[in-house]
Amino acid sequence: MTGGIERVACVGGGVIGSGWAARFALNGIDVWLYDPDPDAGSRAEVVLANAEHAYSRLFGDMRPAPGALRIARSVAEAVDGAGFVQESVPERLDLKRRVLAEIGAAAPAGAVVASSTSGLLPSAMQEHMQHPERMLVGHPFNPVYLLPLVEVVAGRRTAPETVERASAVYGGLGMKPLVLRKEIDAFIADRLQEALWREALWLVHDGVATVGEIDDAMRYSFGLRWAQMGVFQTYRLAGGEAGMRHFLEQFGPCLAWPWTKLTDVPELDDALIDAVADQSDRQAEGLSTRELERIRDDNLVGILEALERSGPAGWGAGALLSEARQRMRERSGG
Amino acid sequence: MTGGIERVACVGGGVIGSGWAARFALNGIDVWLYDPDPDAGSRAEVVLANAEHAYSRLFGDMRPAPGALRIARSVAEAVDGAGFVQESVPERLDLKRRVLAEIGAAAPAGAVVASSTSGLLPSAMQEHMQHPERMLVGHPFNPVYLLPLVEVVAGRRTAPETVERASAVYGGLGMKPLVLRKEIDAFIADRLQEALWREALWLVHDGVATVGEIDDAMRYSFGLRWAQMGVFQTYRLAGGEAGMRHFLEQFGPCLAWPWTKLTDVPELDDALIDAVADQSDRQAEGLSTRELERIRDDNLVGILEALERSGPAGWGAGALLSEARQRMRERSGG
Repeated sequence: MTGGIERVACVGGGVIGSGWAARFALNGIDVWLYDPDPDAGSRAEVVLANAEHAYSRLFGDMRPAPGALRIARSVAEAVDGAGFVQESVPERLDLKRRVLAEIGAAAPAGAVVASSTSGLLPSAMQEHMQHPERMLVGHPFNPVYLLPLVEVVAGRRTAPETVERASAVYGGLGMKPLVLRKEIDAFIADRLQEALWREALWLVHDGVATVGEIDDAMRYSFGLRWAQMGVFQTYRLAGGEAGMRHFLEQFGPCLAWPWTKLTDVPELDDALIDAVADQSDRQAEGLSTRELERIRDDNLVGILEALERSGPAGWGAGALLSEARQRMRERSGG
Repeated sequence: MTGGIERVACVGGGVIGSGWAARFALNGIDVWLYDPDPDAGSRAEVVLANAEHAYSRLFGDMRPAPGALRIARSVAEAVDGAGFVQESVPERLDLKRRVLAEIGAAAPAGAVVASSTSGLLPSAMQEHMQHPERMLVGHPFNPVYLLPLVEVVAGRRTAPETVERASAVYGGLGMKPLVLRKEIDAFIADRLQEALWREALWLVHDGVATVGEIDDAMRYSFGLRWAQMGVFQTYRLAGGEAGMRHFLEQFGPCLAWPWTKLTDVPELDDALIDAVADQSDRQAEGLSTRELERIRDDNLVGILEALERSGPAGWGAGALLSEARQRMRERSGG
């Protein structure tokens, strides 16, 4: 039982939609996936294989029987009888509205309808829905089957009960639902990521560093910190015994220094796109997307297990993993 | 042998200076530490104890005999006979210049003089030095004894040989020297961190999220990605088989959306400082700085070991750890 849901619909079968399908299925829930692309089914199988590899390492034999992953021929067929619908179509408001209206018209009255949008406002997306009260945003992170965070964002017309039900479903998948206090563009995580991403593009644009050098600067330093404590708890410790207040007094002024390209957005012209794409190809050192995905997933599994071993109750995502193992054990009757 | 250095001087004994002292000492190098604060010695012992706990987990018995950590009564006494000097005094250009001039006057002619500054330009700091050619920036990350990255930045008057020698010394400590192509304020890592930090402060300022919620948004999602791949390799995979070029075409336009507080720097007035500091206290849930440092270090050790287990040769910081183990084994004659 995952928040009482036994069958879900995933509408949109790209990297995110397939990741959702894998996460639901490997938690024992039947999934109907719809995507207009005829190759969506084979793409989803590849993602499911990656997810199975990761889950076999994380949960071994204590996994419940996986749910079935079926390909639907239409949105209506996908959502028919579904208790939960996860929409993951491309980030265009007009397209989202059209698909969500179609889902709303065909889904059972009791179904929650969640959008994976990484930044569009639920109030804008739910406008043309027959039942906006059951629609909200559930924004996940790639790879969806491994990363715990899901940002839960209610629109003006979303019912509080919908937020509770969606959070229960996501929690039942071993995820960390973060319910936003306010509805804002890009929510929380993408505002933070986008601020850094913009600066990273400037560093490439200005020839200060290559794509590979920037990634090294992250994965050999603050990336290792942010994986287990965010930026605030990390800086609290940088302040020494005096803590956060001392840190803010010490480093606060730096904020006003001309350290970042405050005002400008880098133009993604052909030259910058070529530079980033070509440097990215060199950085991959001949490894295919499949190979890099496997390395990433093995690293994430190892990091999650390392966090689980920290302290008696685990730490952050590690504690979440312990709870997920327990839940899996119960569901598999082990 | 660590780049041929057997004795180093650490000038400045705060969180960073003490971290350097611990990293040098636990790599078998004698350290003379100078700090005007009479409590510096006991603070350094606490950091050394943290570092010993982490190194015993990482390297067990294969560690070489630790170098001696001695407290000097003056800069001159600290740098006397030192082959390498690491300056870690507070981030004020006037103070850095004065201390670096003092170091330059007293250090052996052959000594490299490195500053831990997190953003000041080496060209500006070396101005009043007798031998600017041997001065450069070696910017580390807290905890210095565990995080591998050190940004190596040459000033206008730094000799190329100084960059090579400093990189060799840092590499011998199991670190990842990243030599910058250009001398820019805040270098690479702090430009990226500061862009995100500024946005995080806005989210608190605007009441969108608490300090704890922002840290959760990071450590349950993209923090886990950035610890093992940086932002570019991560987004390469978000693009699916089509890779980075597809990702840029798909998400590039988002950069121009009004997602971040592009132009403004949040004012760290009392209200914001109180909000951040108080929320940080709540987030700590009664854990002391010492306890949080131990949790952080145990997590970092676990993450580094997880990355070492990835693939035959380890991944990024994991491969670096394997090399460090090998070097330790050789030095300890094990």
